[in-house]
Amino acid sequence: MSEQTVSIRTTGKVIQSPCGPIVHGLEDVLVKITSISDIDGRAGKLWYRGYRIEDLAENSTYEEVVYLLLYGKLPNVKELEDLKRRLAANRDLNPATIEVVRSLAKAHPMFALEAAVAAEGAFDEDNLKLAEALRAGRYKQEEKDLALKIAEKLVAKLPTIVAYHYRFSRGLEPVRPRADLSHSANFLYMFFGKEPDPLATRAIDLYLILHADHEIPASTFTALVIGATLSDLYSVIAGAIGALKGPLHGGANEAAVKSYLEIGDPAKTKDLVEAATKPGGPRLMGVGHRVYKAYDPRAKIFKKLVEDYTAKFGDPQKLYAIASGIEQAVLSHEYFQQRKLYPNVDFWSGIVFYYMGIPYDYFTPLFAMSRVVGWTAHVLEYWENNRLFRPRACYVGPHDQQYIPLNSRT
Amino acid sequence: MSEQTVSIRTTGKVIQSPCGPIVHGLEDVLVKITSISDIDGRAGKLWYRGYRIEDLAENSTYEEVVYLLLYGKLPNVKELEDLKRRLAANRDLNPATIEVVRSLAKAHPMFALEAAVAAEGAFDEDNLKLAEALRAGRYKQEEKDLALKIAEKLVAKLPTIVAYHYRFSRGLEPVRPRADLSHSANFLYMFFGKEPDPLATRAIDLYLILHADHEIPASTFTALVIGATLSDLYSVIAGAIGALKGPLHGGANEAAVKSYLEIGDPAKTKDLVEAATKPGGPRLMGVGHRVYKAYDPRAKIFKKLVEDYTAKFGDPQKLYAIASGIEQAVLSHEYFQQRKLYPNVDFWSGIVFYYMGIPYDYFTPLFAMSRVVGWTAHVLEYWENNRLFRPRACYVGPHDQQYIPLNSRT
Ligand SMILES: CC(C)(COP(=O)(O)OP(=O)(O)OC[C@H]1O[C@@H](n2cnc3c(N)ncnc32)[C@H](O)[C@@H]1OP(=O)(O)O)[C@@H](O)C(=O)NCCC(=O)NCCS
Ligand SMILES: CC(C)(COP(=O)(O)OP(=O)(O)OC[C@H]1O[C@@H](n2cnc3c(N)ncnc32)[C@H](O)[C@@H]1OP(=O)(O)O)[C@@H](O)C(=O)NCCC(=O)NCCS
Repeated sequence: MSEQTVSIRTTGKVIQSPCGPIVHGLEDVLVKITSISDIDGRAGKLWYRGYRIEDLAENSTYEEVVYLLLYGKLPNVKELEDLKRRLAANRDLNPATIEVVRSLAKAHPMFALEAAVAAEGAFDEDNLKLAEALRAGRYKQEEKDLALKIAEKLVAKLPTIVAYHYRFSRGLEPVRPRADLSHSANFLYMFFGKEPDPLATRAIDLYLILHADHEIPASTFTALVIGATLSDLYSVIAGAIGALKGPLHGGANEAAVKSYLEIGDPAKTKDLVEAATKPGGPRLMGVGHRVYKAYDPRAKIFKKLVEDYTAKFGDPQKLYAIASGIEQAVLSHEYFQQRKLYPNVDFWSGIVFYYMGIPYDYFTPLFAMSRVVGWTAHVLEYWENNRLFRPRACYVGPHDQQYIPLNSRT
Repeated sequence: MSEQTVSIRTTGKVIQSPCGPIVHGLEDVLVKITSISDIDGRAGKLWYRGYRIEDLAENSTYEEVVYLLLYGKLPNVKELEDLKRRLAANRDLNPATIEVVRSLAKAHPMFALEAAVAAEGAFDEDNLKLAEALRAGRYKQEEKDLALKIAEKLVAKLPTIVAYHYRFSRGLEPVRPRADLSHSANFLYMFFGKEPDPLATRAIDLYLILHADHEIPASTFTALVIGATLSDLYSVIAGAIGALKGPLHGGANEAAVKSYLEIGDPAKTKDLVEAATKPGGPRLMGVGHRVYKAYDPRAKIFKKLVEDYTAKFGDPQKLYAIASGIEQAVLSHEYFQQRKLYPNVDFWSGIVFYYMGIPYDYFTPLFAMSRVVGWTAHVLEYWENNRLFRPRACYVGPHDQQYIPLNSRT
């Protein structure tokens, strides 16, 4: 192959190396073409397959969004019913996977989720069959259908792993999935062992809708790098879960709700916000975003849900009032205005999880339960025109060092 | 941040997108500076930390290479003894991890390895402590020492997982590690349940030395992408294992040895080689390499081992003779000469594994057992100047699609 020179634009840091420039963290470097989701950070807009997140949040369920992201269009009544039936039919785990989750009852749920997804992949015949076809260089309609089927299974199974882990970690028996419940209702049912309130179900469902895809953050990039080796879809998701766990990636909703609990009093919000504006002061959790330089559209949507939820079930810790106070102070303070810092999606979501009684450790697993569809959609899209990732490192060390025998080394 | 334009050279395919050029698979795109390993593909040379692979293969053990790659210099007698003691002391697994491996007795060992590594990470206090420090933004000497300690643990534990899985998969009791044996001898001891022959130990050790690092193929890149989120080192390795499993990445030694077994007769090698030169003919397995356009230096080294091994233990399937015949035909045929196709490291290694009685499914786990040190060394190096990977995708779909209510969709 002949060498070409390519001009790349980046707002990131460029490191000059003896081999040429390095865009640190590949910031802004294009790695694929997509028609899955798009973000307009300046305007605070997000689309899935061209649909505005506001429309989807208001009118859809997570199942509908799963269909949209995987199949590229909104389902009609029959297509949605079929998808729901398939998802419900695939919620169970292999007995070996259940044993893995049980063995990891004392582990942080993100480790257990990683391990259980890898385990389940070993027993999914469709997964092994697709991996075999990919190995043989086949990715035709039959394989694409198989890949979609496996993606649906992953969407269906993650909530079961998360809920079972919670049950085992508390010394409780797992609650088997119920096919007559929606994706989100069934999750809460398996988690808490009782049929959930519709507003709680709606809260989970809305959270899942809002996090289903977000272009290619590090976890989605991990999914692509693993997927491009033609490994298998469960390994893709296990790896992505490992990346989502990273504090530079995963959500700040735990930190946000903890900061509200710590203040404890809506009257004190101004102090907290003031402190954050001082040089070297603590950052306000759930405020600011690498891409959104406007109010995060997902945060706006979830705020309303928090209002409804606390109105219905009460707000003994005054979390909605405290968060609203912080929001007010942030929006009106010139420090945040100048820097274009607005509440992000993590600003509100922790409050509802907290009141539902979902332990902090399960916040990021919930994120994974949602994003699994984005991860698989991106890998399937990449497979249409697959190429192994093979970047390079610039070697700057010595060559042909003299090998001194062990006994002569000082 | 202001925008910069960066000129990147690549021999790969460039896709023109509406947002700018995309280097497909990031081919040749620099992502970091390194002083770990270097490859000269044209000359057929490989160095670890500046030492020629030939010198290391002839004079070192895997433990020495581990020290070299992690600490940047060859150890003296005391440093090596200390490392060996630490490795031997860290071979045991957490009981929960053993249960995970046991539950996955019927799974392909690569899935079990992925799951078990994630599991073990949940219980390694040092791993959790380091992840906590990284979360708080600390990576000083104390954290670097901790990271090295964890890297050593991963090196020490992978063979135990692999051997235990093999034992469970055959319905055998696991054989506990023995601290008085070397890394490679102990692996074979745990695997087969008896003290290995020194030449078998040397074969494994040499294989581990030769695969310990190789710049940044997809598995190492996966490790970097996960590592850069500051997740944790076990998740890094679990993800890299998921990528190594991919047929576009992992070794071809299984396919190579199977092709020798299929021919079965040294007299028939010419036909196989001729067939591979025909348009659309089957590729010769273990021949050709993306980077090496000369005899793969690792293959040359391992060939001698195969010769010694079959001389000592016999060669009932005539595999050395068959492979040598193929090698001769390849080296003297102008088809391969013109295309600069030479035997690669996978050409020889499968023969020895086959005669040792290591099942095919364990070939890639052996690769992982070796490369784990390269993966961790690269992540530790990247953490010195860490930056989350955040590439972009170019969105080419529609915007603001009209949302049609479910019941009105056709
Ligand atoms: C998300 C985040 C990392 C984005 O960072 P970014 O766009 O790279 O912005 P920077 O880190 O460069 O910060 C730009 C300026 O805003 C300030 N800033 C950013 N986020 C802030 C916050 N949450 N509170 C107070 N100040 C903040 C920085 O101190 C900096 O000020 P300076 O120019 O005076 O030095 C950052 O806003 C943050 O840490 N937020 C809190 C954690 C959070 O909610 N994360 C979840 C994101 S989904
Ligand atoms: C490793 C490999 C993918 C490298 O590929 P590459 O450098 O990108 O080379 P290409 O695939 O572009 O092939 C270049 C030419 O050599 C030929 N070629 C490459 N490897 C060949 C092989 N093993 N047998 C026969 N022909 C081969 C190709 O057919 C092509 O011929 P053409 O120019 O007439 O079309 C390739 O050599 C291969 O498939 N080898 C066999 C599998 C293997 O051993 N893999 C393990 C590598 S560690």
